[in-house]
Amino acid sequence: MPASSVRDQHPRPMPFADLVLTHISWLVTCDGQMRCIPSGAVAVDGGAIVGVGTTEQILSLFRGRETLALPGFMVLPGLVNTHTHAAMSCFRGLGDDLPLDRWLHEIIFPAEASLVREEMVYWGSLLASVEMLKNGITTFCDGYFFEEAAARAALDAGSRAVLGQGILDFPSPDRPDPRTGRQRAEAFLKAFPDGSDRLYPSLFCHSLYTCAPETLQWVKALCRENDILFQMHLSETAGEVGQLLGTYRERPVFTLERLALLDEGTLLAHCVWVNPEETALLAANGAGVSHNVESNMKLASGVAPISRMHESGVRVGLGTDGCASNNDLDIFSEMDKAAKLHKVMEKDPQTCPAPRILQMATRDGASVIGLGNRIGSLEVGMRADFVAIDLDQPHLTPLYDPISHIVYAVKGSDVRHVWVDGRNVVWNGEMQTVDEKRAMAEVRRLAAHVRTQGDLHMSRMKSLSL
Amino acid sequence: MPASSVRDQHPRPMPFADLVLTHISWLVTCDGQMRCIPSGAVAVDGGAIVGVGTTEQILSLFRGRETLALPGFMVLPGLVNTHTHAAMSCFRGLGDDLPLDRWLHEIIFPAEASLVREEMVYWGSLLASVEMLKNGITTFCDGYFFEEAAARAALDAGSRAVLGQGILDFPSPDRPDPRTGRQRAEAFLKAFPDGSDRLYPSLFCHSLYTCAPETLQWVKALCRENDILFQMHLSETAGEVGQLLGTYRERPVFTLERLALLDEGTLLAHCVWVNPEETALLAANGAGVSHNVESNMKLASGVAPISRMHESGVRVGLGTDGCASNNDLDIFSEMDKAAKLHKVMEKDPQTCPAPRILQMATRDGASVIGLGNRIGSLEVGMRADFVAIDLDQPHLTPLYDPISHIVYAVKGSDVRHVWVDGRNVVWNGEMQTVDEKRAMAEVRRLAAHVRTQGDLHMSRMKSLSL
Repeated sequence: MPASSVRDQHPRPMPFADLVLTHISWLVTCDGQMRCIPSGAVAVDGGAIVGVGTTEQILSLFRGRETLALPGFMVLPGLVNTHTHAAMSCFRGLGDDLPLDRWLHEIIFPAEASLVREEMVYWGSLLASVEMLKNGITTFCDGYFFEEAAARAALDAGSRAVLGQGILDFPSPDRPDPRTGRQRAEAFLKAFPDGSDRLYPSLFCHSLYTCAPETLQWVKALCRENDILFQMHLSETAGEVGQLLGTYRERPVFTLERLALLDEGTLLAHCVWVNPEETALLAANGAGVSHNVESNMKLASGVAPISRMHESGVRVGLGTDGCASNNDLDIFSEMDKAAKLHKVMEKDPQTCPAPRILQMATRDGASVIGLGNRIGSLEVGMRADFVAIDLDQPHLTPLYDPISHIVYAVKGSDVRHVWVDGRNVVWNGEMQTVDEKRAMAEVRRLAAHVRTQGDLHMSRMKSLSL
Repeated sequence: MPASSVRDQHPRPMPFADLVLTHISWLVTCDGQMRCIPSGAVAVDGGAIVGVGTTEQILSLFRGRETLALPGFMVLPGLVNTHTHAAMSCFRGLGDDLPLDRWLHEIIFPAEASLVREEMVYWGSLLASVEMLKNGITTFCDGYFFEEAAARAALDAGSRAVLGQGILDFPSPDRPDPRTGRQRAEAFLKAFPDGSDRLYPSLFCHSLYTCAPETLQWVKALCRENDILFQMHLSETAGEVGQLLGTYRERPVFTLERLALLDEGTLLAHCVWVNPEETALLAANGAGVSHNVESNMKLASGVAPISRMHESGVRVGLGTDGCASNNDLDIFSEMDKAAKLHKVMEKDPQTCPAPRILQMATRDGASVIGLGNRIGSLEVGMRADFVAIDLDQPHLTPLYDPISHIVYAVKGSDVRHVWVDGRNVVWNGEMQTVDEKRAMAEVRRLAAHVRTQGDLHMSRMKSLSL
C-alpha cells in the first residue's frame, strides 16, 4: 500500500476513528489510478477520510468507535452533479416533447411566473436534494433564484452543495428590477449561511444572450474577490451561437476570453457547440465544463464534443440539468448515456470507456465546481462523502469488473447507504435527515398551482382521461 | 365508457372475477387511443382481462374473489422485450469498451466456447427472466442455443416468452455439426414444452452472413409450416452491410425479399443500416423490427432510422439485446434512451414523443413477436399481464403526465407488483416463483469458469486491485 494511503504509519498506539467500514466487496477509490480494492475498508474521523486500504490493513491501523462490515457491497465516492436547477423538480415532466421555443415560452416561463417564490425554491430544492442523495449524488452545483432557500434545503437534507444565485439582465422572480443585480448578489453573499462547510456560495450568470458584458464582468469580479465559483450556460444550442455570432462577430468562447471571464474558477454548462479552437481556448484558460447529456438529447440541443475536450485537457464533469428537461436527477443514468452516446456518435466503442466516465462523475466533477481538494475520491484527507451499493441483486450478477458495473449496470436505486461529511444521511434507502413524505406533499400542493400558457398541460391531462 | 371495455353490459347478476384491482391512481391502458384512466380498475378472470374502466364502473360490474386497492400506483401492461439472448446474462459486462471484432473474437466467442451448455443456458436464462420480471418485462423474445433450457427457465420464472432456437451454418455449442441443423430444429419444435400457453417456439437464423440462402429458406418454411416466428439479425453494422453487398450485389433487405423471407411472421433485430428503399420494402411486406438502442450505442453500431420506419408504417418494438452488450435487461431504460437519442439525432424534440415510445414497448412490441392479439394492452380479452408502479417516491413527484413519467422518469426498480396470465409473480419487489438467490449463486459459480483469449478479463481484474 502506498505510504500516502494512511495518515499514520505507526500503528502503536492504535488510534480511534469515528467510523470504520470493512469487508467491502469492492472499494472503488476513484483516486488518480482509479484503483479498486477487493475486501476494502475505509476509516473516517471528524468527517474526513483517515485510512483507505484492504480490510486487513485498516483493521491493523484503526479502532472504530463504530464499525460496519459491508460484504456484498461496493463503496464509491458520492457522485457529483455539476449542473442543476434543483427547485425545478416542481416542473418535472411539464410540457415534454415540444420544440425548445414553445417549451420555454408556453410552458416553462409561464410556469415559473406562476410558481417561483422562496417557498417553492425551498420545497423543490429539498425534494431534489432527497432524490439526489437517494441516487448517490452527495454534491450538487445549483443555479436558480432565491438561492438562499436552496441553501437551506441542502443544509436540511444533508447534501453538500454549491449554490449559484442567478443573475440576468431581465426581471426575474427574486428581482423584478434587474438594475438591482449587484445589491442582490452582494446581499446573497453576505447572508450566506455560515457554520457549515458543506455549503458554498456561487454566482450564476444565465448566459451571454441574457447578460450584457458589463454584467458578466462585475459578477466575475465579485466571484474572484470572494474566491467563489462563477457559473454560466454556454453554447447550448446552435441557434444561440448563431445569434451571438451576429451580435459579437466572434464565437462565444472567444467573447468570454476577450472579457477575461475564463479561468479555473469558471464553470460553463453545456458547451454543445464549441469548435476545436474554442476547445483549445478552454483548455488553455482552465475553465471547467458541465456535460448535460440527457438534457441535451431530450431538448435536441446537440452532442457536446466530449472526447475532443478530453484529448485537449479540458476538465469536464457530468450534470443532470433541471428536472423539467431530463426528467430526473440521476448521475448513474447520465454516466450510462454519456458512455453510450459518444461511442455511437464517434463510431468508436473505445471512446469514453467506463473508467473515464466514472472519473467525470466523481473526481473531475469535484474539480470543475472548485471542490477537487475536498471530494471526488476516497483518499486520505478527503471529506468522507461516499455511497454503498448493494451488489447482491440479479441485474448486478455476475460481476467481472466493478467500474463497468457502475457505468453500465448499477442504477440510482441500488444505492443503500449514503454518508456526507462522515454523517449517515441515507440508511437502507431511507432518508435519515428530513421527512420525504412532507417534501413530496408540499411539492404536490405547489404543482397544483402551476399555470402554463392557455393551460396547455391541463388540456393534455384532460385528453389522457376518459 | 366504450361498449368494448367490458365483457358484460348487463351487471345483473354481478359476475365473479378472480381478481379486481381498484383505485389505481393512473391506469395506462396502451389501447389504440393510449387512454389513461384516473382512479382506474381492472377485472381479471381465468388469466384474461374481463373489465377495464374507472373504479366506480368496474365495482358496479364485477365481484372480485380477490380485490386489491392500489392508490398511489400506476398500472400498465407488462413490457415486451422483443430481442434478447437471455442466457448471456452470464457474460454481463465481460470485455466492455473494446472494438466489436476484438470483443467478439477475444472475449465473447472464447467465453461461449468455455461456458455454453444446457446448464448455463438454464441458469443464465432464469437469472435473466428474474431480472426482466422485476423490471416489469413480462414477455421476452429470445434467441440462443439449447433453447429448450431457456424455455424451462421462463416457465419456472413465470415469464411469457418466445423461444428462438439458434441456427447457423457454423458449429455451435449445441450442434457441433452444422449439417444437422434441420434435425435439430425439428427436434426442438417436437420436444417444445406443452401445457403452457405462455411459451411459444421460434427459430432464429443468426444472420445473412452466417446462414446460406438455403438455410434461411428451409428455416422460414418450417416456421410457416408451424405458424411460428422467424427471427434473424439484420444490418446491425455498416461493415456487415458492406460485406453482404459484396456477396449478393444488393442491399440485405432486397436479398431477404428475393428469398421470400419477408412477411408478418418475420422479426428482424437491429436494422440499423437500412436505407429508405429497404424501409419501404419492410413496410410493404409487413416484417417487424426490433430496435436495440442501447446495444447499438454501446457497440457503436449506429442509429437505426426509427422515425423513418414509423412514418413508413414499419412495426417496431424495443429490445435489450443480450447482457454482454447493454449491460442489463431494462426496457424502461431503453425507452428513455430511444426517446432522447432520436430527438438529438434528428435535431427535433418532437420526434419519438413519449406515447409513441411507450407504444413500442408494449402493443407494438407484442405485435412484432406475433402476440399482438394476446398482450401489449389492457383491454378486454387480452391476457392479464400487467405491472404496478409505486408513484409515491421523490423522483416521481410531482406527476403532470403519466406517460411522460413512464418514459422519462420511471425506473425498472419502481416496479412493485407483476402479474403474468393473471398470476402474481412479483410482489412488493420480491419474486414469488423462484429462488433468486439460488439463480445468482449458480450464475456466479458458472462465471468463475469463463475463459477469454489470454484470459483478458482476468488480467483486467488484477489491474483493478492493489
